[in-house]
Amino acid sequence: MKNILTGAAFAIASMISTAYAGPVEEMLDVDRAFAAMAQDQGVPAAFAAYAAEDVRMFPEGGAPYTGRDALIERFSSWPEGATLLWTPMDGVAAPGGDFGYTWGAYVFTAQGEDGETSSYGKYVSIWRKDDGEWKFIADIGNQGPAPEAED
Amino acid sequence: MKNILTGAAFAIASMISTAYAGPVEEMLDVDRAFAAMAQDQGVPAAFAAYAAEDVRMFPEGGAPYTGRDALIERFSSWPEGATLLWTPMDGVAAPGGDFGYTWGAYVFTAQGEDGETSSYGKYVSIWRKDDGEWKFIADIGNQGPAPEAED
Repeated sequence: MKNILTGAAFAIASMISTAYAGPVEEMLDVDRAFAAMAQDQGVPAAFAAYAAEDVRMFPEGGAPYTGRDALIERFSSWPEGATLLWTPMDGVAAPGGDFGYTWGAYVFTAQGEDGETSSYGKYVSIWRKDDGEWKFIADIGNQGPAPEAED
Repeated sequence: MKNILTGAAFAIASMISTAYAGPVEEMLDVDRAFAAMAQDQGVPAAFAAYAAEDVRMFPEGGAPYTGRDALIERFSSWPEGATLLWTPMDGVAAPGGDFGYTWGAYVFTAQGEDGETSSYGKYVSIWRKDDGEWKFIADIGNQGPAPEAED
C-alpha cells in the first residue's frame, strides 16, 4: 500500500512537473537538435531549417534583418571550414506554452592563415510553436568569457 | 447608410487590429517608459524598476547572471556620467498576450579622460506580464553599426 501511494504521488508529481516544465524542455530539445544539425549538416542548413519565415536576426556588429529568405542569403557566404557549436543551457516559456526562449553558450571557430581562432559567447533564441512545430523567431548573441581553462 | 457601414467596418477593423497588436504596443509603451526613466532617473534605477525578480542578464563581454538583486548589485557600479539611451523599434507577442519581446537601438556614452566616447548597438528584451504588470525577464544586446551620418 505504501508503495502504491508512493507510486501515485510520484506519478502526480511527474504530471505536475511535466505540465509546468514541458514547453521549456521541448524548446531545449529542439535547440539541441538544431545544434546537432549545425554540426552534422553545417550551420547554414541548420539555421534555414529551424528559422521561422518572419525570423528577425541580430548579428554581432551588423544591422538587424528580417526573414528566413534574407537569413539563407546571408548564410550562403558562411566561411569555409568555420564551425558554430552551441550548448543550450536553460529557457523560459510563456504561460500558453507556445512561445519562449532558450539561452546557451557558443563557440565560433574560424580557419585562418595562422590556424584556428575561436571566440566564445552566449546567445538567446526566441521560439514560437507554429502548427505544432517550434521555430526560432529571433536570435541574438554576444561575446562572453571563454570557459575557464582546466587546472 | 454608406457612412454607417464604413464606420462599422472601420470599428471592426480597429477592434481586430487592437486585439492583434495590443500586447506588442503595450510592451513597446513599457519599453519607452523604461527608456525615459533611464534618462530621467538614471540607468540603475530604471533597470531595478522594470526587471522581474527572476530576470536573466547577458552582459556584453561577461557571463550571464540571474536575479533582480544581482542586477541591482552590478548596476551599483554604473560609471559616473555614463548614459544608455535606447529606442524601442518593434516586438512580437506570444499568442496569450502575456509574454513577448521588444527590440531596439541603443547608444552608450561614457565620459573618459579624453572626453565622451559612444558605442552603438541593438538589444532584445523579453517581457512577461506578472499580475498585470510587464517586467523584463531577459536582456541582451550586441554592438551594431552606428547610425549613418547625415549628408
